[in-house]
Amino acid sequence: REVLNVASLPPRLVPKYLHKSAKGCLLSLQWPQPPRNVLIIPKLHAPKVVDSAVAFAKHLHNDYPGVNLIFESRIASHVHETLPFPIYTSDPTYFPDHIDLVATLGGDGTILRAASLFSTQESVPPVLSFSMGTLGFLGEWKFEEYKRAWREVYMSGSTVAVQDLQGPHTQAATGARAESEQSTPEVFAGWENARGKNMGATRASKILLRHRLKVGMYDADGVNINEQMMPTATAEQNNFHHHLHPASEDCAIPHPKTVMGAPPAFHAINELLIHRGPHPHLAIIDIYLNNHWLTEAVADGILISTPTGSTAYSLSSGGSIIHPLVKSLLITPICPRSLSFRPLVLPLTTKVVLKLSERNRGRELEVSIDGKRRAGVGIGMEVRVEGEIVRKLDDGSWTGGVPCVIRGPGKGEIHDGALEDDDGWVVGLNGLLKFNYPFGEPPSGF
Amino acid sequence: REVLNVASLPPRLVPKYLHKSAKGCLLSLQWPQPPRNVLIIPKLHAPKVVDSAVAFAKHLHNDYPGVNLIFESRIASHVHETLPFPIYTSDPTYFPDHIDLVATLGGDGTILRAASLFSTQESVPPVLSFSMGTLGFLGEWKFEEYKRAWREVYMSGSTVAVQDLQGPHTQAATGARAESEQSTPEVFAGWENARGKNMGATRASKILLRHRLKVGMYDADGVNINEQMMPTATAEQNNFHHHLHPASEDCAIPHPKTVMGAPPAFHAINELLIHRGPHPHLAIIDIYLNNHWLTEAVADGILISTPTGSTAYSLSSGGSIIHPLVKSLLITPICPRSLSFRPLVLPLTTKVVLKLSERNRGRELEVSIDGKRRAGVGIGMEVRVEGEIVRKLDDGSWTGGVPCVIRGPGKGEIHDGALEDDDGWVVGLNGLLKFNYPFGEPPSGF
Amino acid sequence: REVLNVASLPPRLVPKYLHKSAKGCLLSLQWPQPPRNVLIIPKLHAPKVVDSAVAFAKHLHNDYPGVNLIFESRIASHVHETLPFPIYTSDPTYFPDHIDLVATLGGDGTILRAASLFSTQESVPPVLSFSMGTLGFLGEWKFEEYKRAWREVYMSGSTVAVQDLQGPHTQAATGARAESEQSTPEVFAGWENARGKNMGATRASKILLRHRLKVGMYDADGVNINEQMMPTATAEQNNFHHHLHPASEDCAIPHPKTVMGAPPAFHAINELLIHRGPHPHLAIIDIYLNNHWLTEAVADGILISTPTGSTAYSLSSGGSIIHPLVKSLLITPICPRSLSFRPLVLPLTTKVVLKLSERNRGRELEVSIDGKRRAGVGIGMEVRVEGEIVRKLDDGSWTGGVPCVIRGPGKGEIHDGALEDDDGWVVGLNGLLKFNYPFGEPPSGF
Amino acid sequence: REVLNVASLPPRLVPKYLHKSAKGCLLSLQWPQPPRNVLIIPKLHAPKVVDSAVAFAKHLHNDYPGVNLIFESRIASHVHETLPFPIYTSDPTYFPDHIDLVATLGGDGTILRAASLFSTQESVPPVLSFSMGTLGFLGEWKFEEYKRAWREVYMSGSTVAVQDLQGPHTQAATGARAESEQSTPEVFAGWENARGKNMGATRASKILLRHRLKVGMYDADGVNINEQMMPTATAEQNNFHHHLHPASEDCAIPHPKTVMGAPPAFHAINELLIHRGPHPHLAIIDIYLNNHWLTEAVADGILISTPTGSTAYSLSSGGSIIHPLVKSLLITPICPRSLSFRPLVLPLTTKVVLKLSERNRGRELEVSIDGKRRAGVGIGMEVRVEGEIVRKLDDGSWTGGVPCVIRGPGKGEIHDGALEDDDGWVVGLNGLLKFNYPFGEPPSGF
Ligand SMILES: NC(=O)C1=CN([C@@H]2O[C@H](COP(=O)(O)OP(=O)(O)OC[C@H]3O[C@@H](n4cnc5c(N)ncnc54)[C@H](O)[C@@H]3O)[C@@H](O)[C@H]2O)C=CC1
Ligand SMILES: NC(=O)C1=CN([C@@H]2O[C@H](COP(=O)(O)OP(=O)(O)OC[C@H]3O[C@@H](n4cnc5c(N)ncnc54)[C@H](O)[C@@H]3O)[C@@H](O)[C@H]2O)C=CC1
Ligand SMILES: NC(=O)C1=CN([C@@H]2O[C@H](COP(=O)(O)OP(=O)(O)OC[C@H]3O[C@@H](n4cnc5c(N)ncnc54)[C@H](O)[C@@H]3O)[C@@H](O)[C@H]2O)C=CC1
Ligand SMILES: NC(=O)C1=CN([C@@H]2O[C@H](COP(=O)(O)OP(=O)(O)OC[C@H]3O[C@@H](n4cnc5c(N)ncnc54)[C@H](O)[C@@H]3O)[C@@H](O)[C@H]2O)C=CC1
Repeated sequence: REVLNVASLPPRLVPKYLHKSAKGCLLSLQWPQPPRNVLIIPKLHAPKVVDSAVAFAKHLHNDYPGVNLIFESRIASHVHETLPFPIYTSDPTYFPDHIDLVATLGGDGTILRAASLFSTQESVPPVLSFSMGTLGFLGEWKFEEYKRAWREVYMSGSTVAVQDLQGPHTQAATGARAESEQSTPEVFAGWENARGKNMGATRASKILLRHRLKVGMYDADGVNINEQMMPTATAEQNNFHHHLHPASEDCAIPHPKTVMGAPPAFHAINELLIHRGPHPHLAIIDIYLNNHWLTEAVADGILISTPTGSTAYSLSSGGSIIHPLVKSLLITPICPRSLSFRPLVLPLTTKVVLKLSERNRGRELEVSIDGKRRAGVGIGMEVRVEGEIVRKLDDGSWTGGVPCVIRGPGKGEIHDGALEDDDGWVVGLNGLLKFNYPFGEPPSGF
Repeated sequence: REVLNVASLPPRLVPKYLHKSAKGCLLSLQWPQPPRNVLIIPKLHAPKVVDSAVAFAKHLHNDYPGVNLIFESRIASHVHETLPFPIYTSDPTYFPDHIDLVATLGGDGTILRAASLFSTQESVPPVLSFSMGTLGFLGEWKFEEYKRAWREVYMSGSTVAVQDLQGPHTQAATGARAESEQSTPEVFAGWENARGKNMGATRASKILLRHRLKVGMYDADGVNINEQMMPTATAEQNNFHHHLHPASEDCAIPHPKTVMGAPPAFHAINELLIHRGPHPHLAIIDIYLNNHWLTEAVADGILISTPTGSTAYSLSSGGSIIHPLVKSLLITPICPRSLSFRPLVLPLTTKVVLKLSERNRGRELEVSIDGKRRAGVGIGMEVRVEGEIVRKLDDGSWTGGVPCVIRGPGKGEIHDGALEDDDGWVVGLNGLLKFNYPFGEPPSGF
Repeated sequence: REVLNVASLPPRLVPKYLHKSAKGCLLSLQWPQPPRNVLIIPKLHAPKVVDSAVAFAKHLHNDYPGVNLIFESRIASHVHETLPFPIYTSDPTYFPDHIDLVATLGGDGTILRAASLFSTQESVPPVLSFSMGTLGFLGEWKFEEYKRAWREVYMSGSTVAVQDLQGPHTQAATGARAESEQSTPEVFAGWENARGKNMGATRASKILLRHRLKVGMYDADGVNINEQMMPTATAEQNNFHHHLHPASEDCAIPHPKTVMGAPPAFHAINELLIHRGPHPHLAIIDIYLNNHWLTEAVADGILISTPTGSTAYSLSSGGSIIHPLVKSLLITPICPRSLSFRPLVLPLTTKVVLKLSERNRGRELEVSIDGKRRAGVGIGMEVRVEGEIVRKLDDGSWTGGVPCVIRGPGKGEIHDGALEDDDGWVVGLNGLLKFNYPFGEPPSGF
Repeated sequence: REVLNVASLPPRLVPKYLHKSAKGCLLSLQWPQPPRNVLIIPKLHAPKVVDSAVAFAKHLHNDYPGVNLIFESRIASHVHETLPFPIYTSDPTYFPDHIDLVATLGGDGTILRAASLFSTQESVPPVLSFSMGTLGFLGEWKFEEYKRAWREVYMSGSTVAVQDLQGPHTQAATGARAESEQSTPEVFAGWENARGKNMGATRASKILLRHRLKVGMYDADGVNINEQMMPTATAEQNNFHHHLHPASEDCAIPHPKTVMGAPPAFHAINELLIHRGPHPHLAIIDIYLNNHWLTEAVADGILISTPTGSTAYSLSSGGSIIHPLVKSLLITPICPRSLSFRPLVLPLTTKVVLKLSERNRGRELEVSIDGKRRAGVGIGMEVRVEGEIVRKLDDGSWTGGVPCVIRGPGKGEIHDGALEDDDGWVVGLNGLLKFNYPFGEPPSGF
């Protein structure tokens, strides 16, 4: 059994996202044909989660034989001994051109890591996320539901039946091996072979397109220096230039986006942060909005967050909670030395510039994206941030945003129409963030 | 000199609003023909402001003879002796069908009062607001600029020149009587007569369409009881059925919207408030979002605010500052008995229901819109709130929102392109709200 | 069976409070002789709680025959039929001179109501409070523990044994009637008759002396008008001049403090509040500290709170949580129209004056103490607030503060020395206020 | 001219602090004899401030010839060429035994640095601080007032006249050289020679005794490891073991406190901070109060602040403003990942323990005192913090706290009695922190 190179896989399939209804805000996933190349990302440093990833991989390989399984090289080297079939890996620069779908197993941090692999891309594959024990605010499915979850995502766009997503077949698949063996691999090879009644797009997976921020770093002369922000510090990144399967290196082609022209923008799914880091003194940052000077922040740091990021660091810093579908970006100061720096919510299209004041007296501040330090910035340098434009292209595909598969209700969970367009956000507010948790009562219900 | 009835005026002219540029967010005012019927609303209880209103009226009458001047009856009875020409008034129910444009002289409260006259209407005339001494956050023009402001609004849509808006003519008009006399009334009778170079739409007034909230009140049986919210408490409202000019009553026709079918929704420009009012005990309110139960608020009250209202009561209650163009509504609790009720920002289209819990034990709570008490509500009753949909109709006109004329830069104020799309919001943040006011420095610049 | 007049009871016994240790902050209750006159205050409008009050009264009458039971007249009229022995009542003005101890059954509101009966007094009897179902932050004992609680309080100061507070005797008393009958009334008539080993003062009840605020209202001429704040609105207050037992009126003597000299100060246990009440406009209040002008508050209202009150209204308004033993008072604004009005914590001895600005334009604001409206105040009037001085007199008694009996640990609850000086505050923070309630975890433990 | 060793100076004179009045909270400075050894600390990296320090030194040398002038070695090496008389310096370990008084020239940072030189001492000499341009919240005197300020401090305790503190003599000294020459040095050699009317203690300098926190660091075995916190990072500290004047080393004696017994506690004047520092992940800290577990903080960091520190970092993190005389300590979280971690204010005597949770997974967090990083702490280690006890000893001297000389009003500034006990705090709130800065008004008055 070998670890094959991602570069040898067929090119990425780009799905469409349809508006489910005039007023609904969630989109409906539509594959042009069944997805083939699935990147599986388990949580770091969590052996049990790797075991779950293996179980998930086996299920896909057995029941959906057309599916190719990709792992980051760090993981691939661990799991390929365990898996009785070939898997794929490579330098992450190959991912954007080959990955149809990403499945994460872990918490919010794992989703952020998955998104960071596509952080210079305008089109991110759909992300199916499983929470593993410690619940995350962004993670939508419980791991136990993985068979149903996968089938729903896989069938999305098919005109073939998905009637039994809730039915005996899937239920058995979840539990009993005997049943599962009955479902011969061929059945799932392509939608044409799938059994059951055609339920059309209405049973397609629901997609929440999360807004991102485009981030560029510029030196004092206005030259883009994004290259300095290239990831260097995290585990999987150390393997960038260290391919497991030597043969694969033959076809290693440098990623086109990084060789020619301006360096690509980085995209943040939670936030861009400038922080004093280990320096004991206050950071001093000039903030501009659409080229107007807004204010001079004297603070531990400044966060520019997406609505999705409003429940992350921004929340801890006193920001409001913004629903992910509000097209906006947030400016939230961290420990500002002012009584009157209230968090701001601006149109997503606002151009925000953070410029390091001369008054920082030679210190470097730290720039991070989604919780990963990217670079130190010095006096005169600036970080430009702007909401990424999410839009439908003429061919019906989309550009921008991170398409997250939202957990669909299981059989028996659909009580009324309301649930249909539910994005799980209120559940997360109450259940995870303990929003407006009542005083003096024994906790019940959550 | 008599006070004539508004009902005898020609019907309202509805302007169009054009997008100035692909990315600009301000709109451009376009009259189909010069505006004719102008409602002038001075601040309450401020004799000096009434004097300014008189000066403004005289200028309009002299230099733009086609313009009819309307006042609320309370004001009309004061000023008609002073004005050497006929003015108009009536029950406010006639305003929506006849008013082309509203001019307010005062602070934010005066703008709110103006908007409240159209609070059951989907189409509100443009509002040109002058701040009078005490600056307001919503008020855009200084009163001293009234001649330039008026000319800009009046000419918007004309293909006739407005080159001299900044020029000697207007400047003289502002200051010197001699010049002003030269400008014979006929000049402004219609755009065709206006002198000067054609500058087209680019010099048209900039419009900020402020979002509103649609509010409905329902009893425990789900019956709409908006009629109970009819204004009863404010000065001009006492004159609703008390026309100054008896003759005008002849043509008094009941306002169509209020006679047939469901009572109209009310629209809030700042916020909907439910509050404990004079009751010493905490209010208990169940909040639903899109028919899902969100939480039980135990608090002094609950605010549902527009982005515009984010700098009003919501700000005092700890809410974030939201730019008026972010399509959103805010749920901000007032003194919640919880450590974890963080303000929420939701899509403008969210349906919010506030329901009075049985646990209020028989007390009435108070419902207010934009700072005016509207009704008391009892157990089981609910208030339904939803962002008003602002959209362009097929004929190019718009429905929804309050079109506010934004102050355009005067000659010599245009430094670079940036100012062109400036909505004055940042200036208000720094100058009025003292946003992020720096520590320990002598105040300068503001 | 009759309802007797409180005036006929022996005069109040004033206990001493000893410092338990050099560094301990709780005090130790020391009766000069067993307490005799106990005022029992059940929660309002809660019939079940009245039943508990009856059970408590019967236990005291049976096992501690020297004890006289007093009820507010409103309650007395309900319960005297049920109780097979005489009880006492009167106009609350007689309470200060005759009540040795107050027992409340209810939540925090009941304790506040109890304290309000002594709000013009400098020396308040100890308050033993039982929470009834809905837990309160101030209520220390569960009602089920009433026998142990009472015995501990009753024996405090005795040199006679209390060894069996934890022992079979009390336990039986709590549960089994048989045992209880064995304990003949005489046993408890005086401490000398009490059985068991002498454990001395160490088993005496622990007292937390809660700080209060002294409040005075003054008109525009500086004349004290506290008389206008006399209670008028609550149920029991309507009975002030309406004695149940006519005979009792014979000996009705006007309360000395209210006849001669300056009107007495009112004391707040939670806070003094000035609020806009039902008026839709912002209140404008000038605040002075020790005769220096501090600031002009433009807000819904202003709270001056005790440390105890920091977990009440002040908390909802964004104030910090202050431990009850920090000698301080809090100025917390309610919805201030300012970004920079951070709550203040000042020495308890600070003289705070709240003065109604002329800018309120003729409106009245509302003054409340501990959640009860006391008066409306107009322009020019001022409210003067100051921390009450708590001090030990030469005879070893104390003046000032509300002595609250803190729940002592039961047998088996004492794990280490730490518990000995525990005031239950941390338990309340976590268990009731859900302080720092963790994200994303299933609630457990509370 | 040489730089002499501090060790050769006479031992420190310890003043007494008297209560000015029964209720006054400021103390009155009383030297047993005129102060002799003055440590002058100018702001770092500010050449102009060093010039002012030189001017101040010359004035002291000329007019108060008994006074010895001490500088940190780093400064001494700069200024001794400029000064026509000998000055003193040494390793800071000699300061506690020889410095009578510290004079700082700079902002709050300079005062913090001065206090840090005595951070292991229980008795800190009085600190006279001059603000230099950029105002500080803790700095009391303007530098221009240095002659009056010095004379007031110097004469405090004398029974000799200070009548001319406001008078022509001092005024002349401030401005005109001629006058100054008249005042022969001998005049100020001792109080006995000082001219003028005896005004007694009432004109003595007012002292605000600022509370400090005692900080100890312990490893996982409970062993005190304060030695690891010894200063290492700041400029002047690099000179600790690098004496300018070789001869002085002869008498260098190791500081007794650091050789024998337990390492001394460190004292913070603003706060103790544990922070995630450069690590991107949240810190996890268990907090104990008086040996009870309070909560697990998941946050950027935790601040334990003094009341003085409440206007420093704690303010930026959302803490309330605490008057320096409120005997308390604050627990303020920095960006806690919780909606319900409200800042706490506890009795100054509370024992707070911060323990690094195992859940930090091997990372080090950073411990800082008053803005200076002191050490990294790892899992299992704990930081113990407690308010320092400030008390009067039997001989009338005090232990604990930092005695800060409060600016006394100049002639013509005393308007009424109020000012007499003014600690300048309200002035700082309004003038420096822009407390409750009014909306929408042109700034005036500050
Ligand atoms: N003081 C704070 O609150 C800090 C927060 N962060 C946040 O952590 C993020 C990185 O996450 P990890 O790598 O897991 O770091 P981590 O291990 O420090 O955990 C951050 C926590 O935030 C949660 N989280 C992440 N994104 C979220 C979102 N959008 N909504 C709600 N919860 C969210 C995670 O579930 C986790 O509990 C950063 O993007 C930043 O937003 C990072 C540092 C400090
Ligand atoms: N505690 C508070 O902050 C309270 C605020 N209000 C606000 O006042 C509004 C009514 O205004 P008035 O009739 O003038 O009452 P008002 O005379 O009480 O003044 C309210 C203040 O809010 C300002 N304001 C109003 N709308 C604003 C906006 N959208 N952005 C920024 N500032 C704004 C006004 O200029 C004025 O200074 C209400 O809609 C409510 O938002 C009302 C009561 C209490
Ligand atoms: N928005 C708010 O938070 C409001 C709070 N209040 C508070 O209510 C108090 C009056 O209490 P009730 O008559 O029971 O009124 P209530 O029935 O409105 O209940 C107030 C709530 O506050 C709790 N509470 C009272 N004092 C407390 C304390 N010192 N610490 C922690 N919790 C406390 C009570 O248990 C109850 O849950 C007032 O003194 C005021 O502090 C009153 C009105 C509004
Ligand atoms: N985000 C923030 O607010 C941060 C605050 N600090 C504070 O800075 C202090 C160290 O001061 P520097 O060495 O000058 O650092 P710095 O140069 O970073 O300045 C801190 C600022 O805080 C002011 N300050 C210091 N102590 C104060 C007090 N007790 N009350 C009011 N203002 C005060 C200073 O005047 C200065 O403006 C630390 O003790 C910490 O309290 C330190 C880091 C971050």
